[in-house]
Amino acid sequence: MIYLDNAATTRPDAECFVKAERYLKDAFYNPSALYAEGYNLHKELAEARSEILNFIANDRDYDVIFTSCGTEADNQAIFCGGKRGNVVITAGEHSAVFSCINPLKEKGIEVRVAPLNGDGSVNEAELLRLVDSNTSLVSVIHVNNETGAINDINGLASSVKSINSRTLFHSDGVQAFGKIPFKMGKNIDLYSISAHKIGALKGTGALIKRKNAVIKPYIYGGGQESGLRSGTENVFGIKFMQFAARKRYENIAQTHEKIGKLNSYMRENLDKSLFEIISGVSGKNSSPYILSVCALGVRGETILHEVNDKGLIIGTGSACSSNEKKRYSRVILACGISEERADGVLRISFSPETTQAEVEQAAKILNETVGNRREIMS
Amino acid sequence: MIYLDNAATTRPDAECFVKAERYLKDAFYNPSALYAEGYNLHKELAEARSEILNFIANDRDYDVIFTSCGTEADNQAIFCGGKRGNVVITAGEHSAVFSCINPLKEKGIEVRVAPLNGDGSVNEAELLRLVDSNTSLVSVIHVNNETGAINDINGLASSVKSINSRTLFHSDGVQAFGKIPFKMGKNIDLYSISAHKIGALKGTGALIKRKNAVIKPYIYGGGQESGLRSGTENVFGIKFMQFAARKRYENIAQTHEKIGKLNSYMRENLDKSLFEIISGVSGKNSSPYILSVCALGVRGETILHEVNDKGLIIGTGSACSSNEKKRYSRVILACGISEERADGVLRISFSPETTQAEVEQAAKILNETVGNRREIMS
Repeated sequence: MIYLDNAATTRPDAECFVKAERYLKDAFYNPSALYAEGYNLHKELAEARSEILNFIANDRDYDVIFTSCGTEADNQAIFCGGKRGNVVITAGEHSAVFSCINPLKEKGIEVRVAPLNGDGSVNEAELLRLVDSNTSLVSVIHVNNETGAINDINGLASSVKSINSRTLFHSDGVQAFGKIPFKMGKNIDLYSISAHKIGALKGTGALIKRKNAVIKPYIYGGGQESGLRSGTENVFGIKFMQFAARKRYENIAQTHEKIGKLNSYMRENLDKSLFEIISGVSGKNSSPYILSVCALGVRGETILHEVNDKGLIIGTGSACSSNEKKRYSRVILACGISEERADGVLRISFSPETTQAEVEQAAKILNETVGNRREIMS
Repeated sequence: MIYLDNAATTRPDAECFVKAERYLKDAFYNPSALYAEGYNLHKELAEARSEILNFIANDRDYDVIFTSCGTEADNQAIFCGGKRGNVVITAGEHSAVFSCINPLKEKGIEVRVAPLNGDGSVNEAELLRLVDSNTSLVSVIHVNNETGAINDINGLASSVKSINSRTLFHSDGVQAFGKIPFKMGKNIDLYSISAHKIGALKGTGALIKRKNAVIKPYIYGGGQESGLRSGTENVFGIKFMQFAARKRYENIAQTHEKIGKLNSYMRENLDKSLFEIISGVSGKNSSPYILSVCALGVRGETILHEVNDKGLIIGTGSACSSNEKKRYSRVILACGISEERADGVLRISFSPETTQAEVEQAAKILNETVGNRREIMS
């Protein structure tokens, strides 16, 4: 089976699992316990915190709050950061941010949504026009999970702060962390990451927080994570995330280049009479890890099932939004793509383990499947 | 090392891990994905839901919302159930419930706290006196995590409903699930459980919800868990919890009896001139899994470290409250125990794997250590 739905989730890395295994078996203690076995794990968590942080920021200015997933990290950022006035987000946000709109409104907070460009990136000028003296939070997704579009979050954060220095700036970095070479500038206050998108476990994530950004906890209890996220720490999941992040960051530039070549190959080899590319220029303003295409005149879901039978796994849009039971992706429509074309959208997403041979085979299967389907229909 | 801090966390069960391993390795797909590999996991989650539910309730009347831990389940119950008027809790609640008091107050909700009896169970008459026509939620811990006291939650839920039928009744069942033979009566609306207290993984829990009890999600996003808890499902953690629960429930009565004998042995063999028993009568109104004792005239923390050096791990109170940096346990004080005695509290907690030989050795170490310490001091 060729697996090209790595934006939905990735295969847990076998090498990193071996390293993390002891936290699942022998070092199972509660890190809040006072005896040596517990306290040692407390120290191991501190090491994980510091190492993960230093991949994209620094541990002088930032803290890590370990959470149960990227979605929880996003919710904490939005609900605990967006406390008054208005909150500005983009039409390209993951549903972990976008679904917070109604609850925010119920709390009396105005939500302003900035429009997208054709590739799924935010229209920067329009976004900045929405920020004012009452904006408590701005949230801009770093890499769009459906199109791969990269937003210049450092630049945007700096522009937002120059309009209102008290506004908190959050970014959902789930599709960027461990993939896109990037360092957080000092104007980003909150940044969400997830473990299972980089070869670690589902059920682990983190909210990276600038030290002097003040937010409340979202989960209350025993006071773990400096009081900002209670619940017994998932030591195995956190250490697995640390090891997987280390592996990704050791070769991040080379892997980025390698994935860029696979992405280009796929773009070039998909039959242009059958497919239209939605994603922007890979490696420049789009993540090479995600390639969004439109299979013309056919339903994406049909193609997904047909290629699945031929040994290829791809996605149609965000796996999360499959639960929403909506036919068209809200993000794809916000890119200005017609409903007819939105119906044929497929998301092909790569991982460091993806091989050239797999991509060649996948392109062949896709061309053949959409070609056949089009023939049957005509 | 003799491990008798099983109320803090348990060693993940090796047999159950072997069964769950495939969800960590090969069956790693996103259960929300539309292709067969994803959809199959969606079905596997449904099986886990149904099996877990049927151990303590039934799947006609109840649903399972998988969460990231017991703390999150408690928070969802409290914040999404306690929406107006007043909320009634007990002084014996775990901090996952007790720490919600201030956030509730900030939302304009009155919080009423019922006092405890000497063994840590709630004073039922006092609790019921606090419930009125404005009570939106009552939360009573099932088995107290510090003393092991069992509250008659079925009886209490029924009494609460007879005062106000619209009041939601929640119970934190973290120390009861998989340990105490028990079936939920129809008056309990919400019940929190945790995986890592029964030999499964940290970072997995659930909120069991009566089908016609209406609550909002606490984590918003892709709409997983019927829209009530978003975030990619932690399949490995959930299946591990299912297998661990199955193993616990297969022999729940026999194990309960076995643990009861270990508990009795410990009670009988701790030197009465050195220790005072805090927990109530084991197996009747107290869980045999938890034995809370007071080492007279010495500090519990000192004893914890000294016995640790001799190969015995025990707790002082809730591991979670270690983060709160408070010298005395709030729950132990609420039992009416003086600060002087509260200082010497030790929590000894058993698991199905605990052996008679371990308990004999542990009693010896405890008598010897407290005896020596008392001699040094006098």
